[in-house]
Amino acid sequence: MQLGLIGLGKMGGNMATRLRRAGHEVVGFDHHPEKRDVDSLEALVGALAAPRVVWVMVPAGEPTRATIRELRDLLGEGDVVIDGGNSKYTDDQVNADLLAERGIGYLDCGVSGGVWGLENGYALMVGGSAEDVEKVRPVFDDLKPPSPHDERGEPMPGIGFVHAGPVGAGHYAKMVHNGIEYALMQAYGEGYELLAAVDLVEDVPGVIASWTQGTVIRSWLLDLLVKALQEDPRLDRIRGYAEDSGEGRWTVMEAIDNAVPMPTIAASLFARFSSRQEDSPTMKAVAALRNQFGGHAVHAIEAGGSTELEKPA
Amino acid sequence: MQLGLIGLGKMGGNMATRLRRAGHEVVGFDHHPEKRDVDSLEALVGALAAPRVVWVMVPAGEPTRATIRELRDLLGEGDVVIDGGNSKYTDDQVNADLLAERGIGYLDCGVSGGVWGLENGYALMVGGSAEDVEKVRPVFDDLKPPSPHDERGEPMPGIGFVHAGPVGAGHYAKMVHNGIEYALMQAYGEGYELLAAVDLVEDVPGVIASWTQGTVIRSWLLDLLVKALQEDPRLDRIRGYAEDSGEGRWTVMEAIDNAVPMPTIAASLFARFSSRQEDSPTMKAVAALRNQFGGHAVHAIEAGGSTELEKPA
Amino acid sequence: MQLGLIGLGKMGGNMATRLRRAGHEVVGFDHHPEKRDVDSLEALVGALAAPRVVWVMVPAGEPTRATIRELRDLLGEGDVVIDGGNSKYTDDQVNADLLAERGIGYLDCGVSGGVWGLENGYALMVGGSAEDVEKVRPVFDDLKPPSPHDERGEPMPGIGFVHAGPVGAGHYAKMVHNGIEYALMQAYGEGYELLAAVDLVEDVPGVIASWTQGTVIRSWLLDLLVKALQEDPRLDRIRGYAEDSGEGRWTVMEAIDNAVPMPTIAASLFARFSSRQEDSPTMKAVAALRNQFGGHAVHAIEAGGSTELEKPA
Amino acid sequence: MQLGLIGLGKMGGNMATRLRRAGHEVVGFDHHPEKRDVDSLEALVGALAAPRVVWVMVPAGEPTRATIRELRDLLGEGDVVIDGGNSKYTDDQVNADLLAERGIGYLDCGVSGGVWGLENGYALMVGGSAEDVEKVRPVFDDLKPPSPHDERGEPMPGIGFVHAGPVGAGHYAKMVHNGIEYALMQAYGEGYELLAAVDLVEDVPGVIASWTQGTVIRSWLLDLLVKALQEDPRLDRIRGYAEDSGEGRWTVMEAIDNAVPMPTIAASLFARFSSRQEDSPTMKAVAALRNQFGGHAVHAIEAGGSTELEKPA
Repeated sequence: MQLGLIGLGKMGGNMATRLRRAGHEVVGFDHHPEKRDVDSLEALVGALAAPRVVWVMVPAGEPTRATIRELRDLLGEGDVVIDGGNSKYTDDQVNADLLAERGIGYLDCGVSGGVWGLENGYALMVGGSAEDVEKVRPVFDDLKPPSPHDERGEPMPGIGFVHAGPVGAGHYAKMVHNGIEYALMQAYGEGYELLAAVDLVEDVPGVIASWTQGTVIRSWLLDLLVKALQEDPRLDRIRGYAEDSGEGRWTVMEAIDNAVPMPTIAASLFARFSSRQEDSPTMKAVAALRNQFGGHAVHAIEAGGSTELEKPA
Repeated sequence: MQLGLIGLGKMGGNMATRLRRAGHEVVGFDHHPEKRDVDSLEALVGALAAPRVVWVMVPAGEPTRATIRELRDLLGEGDVVIDGGNSKYTDDQVNADLLAERGIGYLDCGVSGGVWGLENGYALMVGGSAEDVEKVRPVFDDLKPPSPHDERGEPMPGIGFVHAGPVGAGHYAKMVHNGIEYALMQAYGEGYELLAAVDLVEDVPGVIASWTQGTVIRSWLLDLLVKALQEDPRLDRIRGYAEDSGEGRWTVMEAIDNAVPMPTIAASLFARFSSRQEDSPTMKAVAALRNQFGGHAVHAIEAGGSTELEKPA
Repeated sequence: MQLGLIGLGKMGGNMATRLRRAGHEVVGFDHHPEKRDVDSLEALVGALAAPRVVWVMVPAGEPTRATIRELRDLLGEGDVVIDGGNSKYTDDQVNADLLAERGIGYLDCGVSGGVWGLENGYALMVGGSAEDVEKVRPVFDDLKPPSPHDERGEPMPGIGFVHAGPVGAGHYAKMVHNGIEYALMQAYGEGYELLAAVDLVEDVPGVIASWTQGTVIRSWLLDLLVKALQEDPRLDRIRGYAEDSGEGRWTVMEAIDNAVPMPTIAASLFARFSSRQEDSPTMKAVAALRNQFGGHAVHAIEAGGSTELEKPA
Repeated sequence: MQLGLIGLGKMGGNMATRLRRAGHEVVGFDHHPEKRDVDSLEALVGALAAPRVVWVMVPAGEPTRATIRELRDLLGEGDVVIDGGNSKYTDDQVNADLLAERGIGYLDCGVSGGVWGLENGYALMVGGSAEDVEKVRPVFDDLKPPSPHDERGEPMPGIGFVHAGPVGAGHYAKMVHNGIEYALMQAYGEGYELLAAVDLVEDVPGVIASWTQGTVIRSWLLDLLVKALQEDPRLDRIRGYAEDSGEGRWTVMEAIDNAVPMPTIAASLFARFSSRQEDSPTMKAVAALRNQFGGHAVHAIEAGGSTELEKPA
């Protein structure tokens, strides 16, 4: 089928390639002239036959909102817009209402898969009406991974696609996915750190590689950790510094709003915050308090607990 | 090759079956007469030609230790004993020293795979000397999973087997594996709970099933969660109660001994402790403190924070 | 000085009493006719001479907002309104802007002290302009605790009052105070639980009482825990169930917004969430996963880790 | 009464001073010749009339154990030894058994108070037999803080002394005290960090000072934090680096052994571990995993989540 695709970065560009390989006609627009098929949104809309389907794959926040507002003025009754970016789920109803004023449908679609999606397919979590989902179905079918089979050749339950609920449910599902992702990464990291801390285990990369088959903890992330350790067995070339995108924060905030205990995902988020601090104000306060136990004369940081301080000057 | 196998429970029994299918001669002993091939350890040892290999697959702690002591008196120079149970790694050097008095070798082997190991193979993490490992190699090769291939047909890095280091390193690696397992399970659980807490996401089992292909968080545990939700979509038949085996506790204690921060694995362990409490003494103390804010006359538990208490009688 | 006080519940009523004892003229209004001095906000405003000071002490959220809107229409240039409730700090600028339209000043004031404030005084954290603070100074001076002295008769640094910054800063400071409060209570609770769990410590209430003098951890909360244990030495009459007010949640959300790691306050909040759950969906998922390790035939929850499951039918 | 005191460092020396001020005869021994009254343990024992009381105040572990062994050979029936150091509670029964061989009594005594103890008194948590406690009672009575009074002049419940149970109970109580201490310090630190992170709160030291009177969170530690901020309002001169003594680690290990959930104390301990790391191996692994999402060509650490990576070369 025909598809307009706005945003041809790493994600959008690869998605266009995957869809074209599957026989779809993709009309792409991007701010970079060398990547795009048309040089304006008007031209993109003009190149599509009604009812049109336009997939927006631009950064979350104002860029996505601005694109939605422009599309509202260019599209019409029966067309459908998909936001495939990492928007906050609360943006979705706003976008949907805006487009609904002109009879334009809206789907939010959480997309997972990163740079591997081109070959493996993209996992898609979709929110919106069943009617709109059906209009985009052929595109979803070719973006998602092929039907998988288990070790015995039988089809596996997962299908890399879900219609999760009404508008917002797709981005919500993707948000939770990313929250889980944080904790999984942290869990493997903690295990790696302990192994690396002891002399007894001589082949840490080998231990982690061994886990990729037959164990309870085998996963794609574990496969990636094995690759990383093959390239850099003690991770000497990588600083322990991790950004966080909005989804992890939003996940914990949603947990709080819904009174859901979320200790591991929150701990993973806090570990990322800590990883980016030059020094920790909390630990300055802790150090200052320990210092105070030793009396006013002590200004260097002392070792030991409350009763162990000796000879502070 | 020939192998003596002590302990023919679910794990040991399946391992015997897998090894026999691969052509090995397994002489099994178990406390249950109907399961065993020989009716004593003496008979087991007598049925094997030197140099003998005897695999111990009995509960960790005293049962394993008692078996090792008996084997010391029955085996001789050049034989090898493998402890494949969930022993604490600190037991291994004790066992090794005991057997070394008689020239008997010792390997500790962490085994992962559960009931799925019979078909999929068992992941093996081994500690001990290279010489002893070579004596058992044919058995290891047929217990471990077959060489895997990735989505593009290329061999994957993991091989389900590692010689992790000297005596103790195998059980250490398995211990850390189980610690990670706790946090992975908790992470998926937290994500599930948040999805289930909100009305917006209408198809929670569908969302989780969709994650099994193409996402960053796909894993074998996620596949198992999908199966569990297919059988019981709201987990109504399962109580939120989780035992813990020693490995999770030992992992966190090792982290503490080595000054390794381990927030997610510790949180997962604590969540299991909480899951088994009828009531929480900690929260009784918290409730009592909140109650005290309201004055002595208040004995029912009041809602709200320190300044919100109204009319305590 | 003259003060209008709206809301004569436990907090507001005690504050009125404390102020009257100090010689101030308090005109009180409440929804309960038996408590109030005037029967409408109009009457309250009419009873005060300009420039008027009106203290609002009603539940946070819509009740406070509605009161502010009414006061905007009744008060005038040079008057000052104080919101002494537990409002979210983001409400304060809205309130201030609303009142500023009519030339009315606004202060937000976090109040701590609970039922003990009548005797001990109330700690006050104030946000707003210095000019408005000066107008209310005599009231602040008599609400706050008297100047304290340390064990040697010297004045202590704290004074129970702070002008923390512009509008919103008072409620922000109170919000953080309450977040800290959660973690302090949880910390004492965890220590209590461990002491109560072991046979070795025979006199748990005695140990905790001993800590109230001379130790590093002595505090007012610890004094309250001692009182609670005097009344109920094993806390048998109190369920381990704890509500949370908004401030704890807001504190953690603010931490997340500002990339501040906040593991203990977040853990305390999550412990309260858990304390209110009949059963934990997270732990249902964990139990379901452990169950899956045992094979499809197993539907009861099994003990032990991944390799310990025996005989699942 | 007469007391032998071994170890005249900051703690022991101050305790000797406090006891002498109260009229006791203290015979002190220390490795530093300039501090001591006698120049050997033999001389110390020789200077005391039977039944003798000897207080050991030397570093925990081997120094304490060696001192106990020497005292066993020098003391006799009816004498009592007190270990007032920060020994692990499991050492106490070993010490008691060793001394009991010669009819010598043993008490373990956790001591809190730091450098402030000389003036304020020391909180004492004692384990052992009632008979031995009575022999040392006069010393305990003058080491502990004087009877306190509350704001209204009435005696407070805590008395700075407890006979917590049999041998080991004193050090156990002190261990838990220190675990709680960790979490209290961390809680104040987290609150401080959040206040310091936002522009809205202009007077952070003032806010914290205001909390020392009338609030729910007032405590001695808070008073110390106020002092620290008076000396260094932004803690610019203190690095966020905190050692931990054994007690915090033992507390969490005991919690794990007793299946007690202990999230805030564990989090506080982990925060100290993190504070001492140049770089975090866990976060290196997390960063490596995020890097892998971007494809093999990406070696710099990328911002954003799994689907946000753009143009990795």
